[in-house]
Amino acid sequence: MLSHIKIVLVETSHPGNIGAVARAMKNMTMSNLRLVSPKIFPSADATARASGANDILSAAEVYDSLSEAISDCQVVLGASARDRTISWPELTARECAEKFAGTGEGSKENVAIIFGRENSGLKNHELDCCHYLLRIPCNEDYSSLNLAAAVQVVSYELLVATGHKVESTIGDKDADPLASMAQMELFYEHLQQTISDIGFLHVDKTQSIMRRLRRIYNRVSLDTKELDILRGILRYSQNHNKK
Amino acid sequence: MLSHIKIVLVETSHPGNIGAVARAMKNMTMSNLRLVSPKIFPSADATARASGANDILSAAEVYDSLSEAISDCQVVLGASARDRTISWPELTARECAEKFAGTGEGSKENVAIIFGRENSGLKNHELDCCHYLLRIPCNEDYSSLNLAAAVQVVSYELLVATGHKVESTIGDKDADPLASMAQMELFYEHLQQTISDIGFLHVDKTQSIMRRLRRIYNRVSLDTKELDILRGILRYSQNHNKK
Repeated sequence: MLSHIKIVLVETSHPGNIGAVARAMKNMTMSNLRLVSPKIFPSADATARASGANDILSAAEVYDSLSEAISDCQVVLGASARDRTISWPELTARECAEKFAGTGEGSKENVAIIFGRENSGLKNHELDCCHYLLRIPCNEDYSSLNLAAAVQVVSYELLVATGHKVESTIGDKDADPLASMAQMELFYEHLQQTISDIGFLHVDKTQSIMRRLRRIYNRVSLDTKELDILRGILRYSQNHNKK
Repeated sequence: MLSHIKIVLVETSHPGNIGAVARAMKNMTMSNLRLVSPKIFPSADATARASGANDILSAAEVYDSLSEAISDCQVVLGASARDRTISWPELTARECAEKFAGTGEGSKENVAIIFGRENSGLKNHELDCCHYLLRIPCNEDYSSLNLAAAVQVVSYELLVATGHKVESTIGDKDADPLASMAQMELFYEHLQQTISDIGFLHVDKTQSIMRRLRRIYNRVSLDTKELDILRGILRYSQNHNKK
């Protein structure tokens, strides 16, 4: 039912946590687990903590990089403790569930929910891939949710939301499919090259400017037709400069 | 805030689970833990899994019997997997939270939420003490929530029900003000001029292309800083072409 939701764990240190996550997912009818460079996997600790959710563990896909793990996803959320220094669109766990649980059957979009390292969470360049930060309401003075506990709460909200038969409403469009993360990465490469070609991009500002541009275009959830138009503009801009 | 809610664990076998429960509670601002005949307590395992929630553990009250543990409570809920052979008033975790989270200050009733043994749950004579069965929605084919996971979900619902205000920030928080429609019109004029300059805009397609571009940039709700960046790119693109 929730097969379009991919739980992605980045560089998990303790294999027991991976097992506990599998159990938490299965309890809530989720099945799609992706692991980015887990420290130890497979592992007896993971199997022990999975406690009957071994099918989730054996079907888990292991990737070398986050970008590979989310390349077929159209929407990406990064679980993160609140950090007031980063301004990014936020969804609570409930808002996320109501927006993305969908009815399952009709959902075309794959949604990745990314959980970071046990101690240090997600890095800035990983958050840059995200359309939204996902925040679990909690005690602001003690907000270190255990990894499996965080997955448990989010999966629970997703299951409850499927019972509410929320239609999938990513964007408000009826026509073209949303661009995948792989397509968006090609767009960002093209965008960076173009604004460098026209002299807008000073080397020392590249990172901060590109971060802001990503934030704009991730936020808007482009469909593939729109992406074609924007890339057409970039192409013309580059070619024109060569004349 | 939720001090009128007492989490009661009955005959917990693994002390690590008691620690994990303490952590789950503290994450959600709960503090009142009661233990009925725990197999091993206190314990280094419990402390390790509590991970900073030691204050909850040291304040935990230990009882010899369930009836003593709940004697000062007016309402008692027993967490239980669905069992169709028992006919008992049921509340889901959310219904429980909405009914009993209260405002804290004004609540006179103490509410006990009882969680049973890891393997066998609550016994019938224990369920007899309960006003309601508390049910956590889950996969009916795999419903064995880990003890701490169950407490996590219930505590989370209680915290959310207190109205724990998460300013919903779809869009931007403390960032720059959103662009006005007048500013957006200037941007669209500039955009149209630029893509015409670089040869992308064929006269007969102007209207449909500009409509699509407007749809993208209206949807994203640009702030003024973002608008400055996009207009900077347009300016460089135009000037570069003149060289």
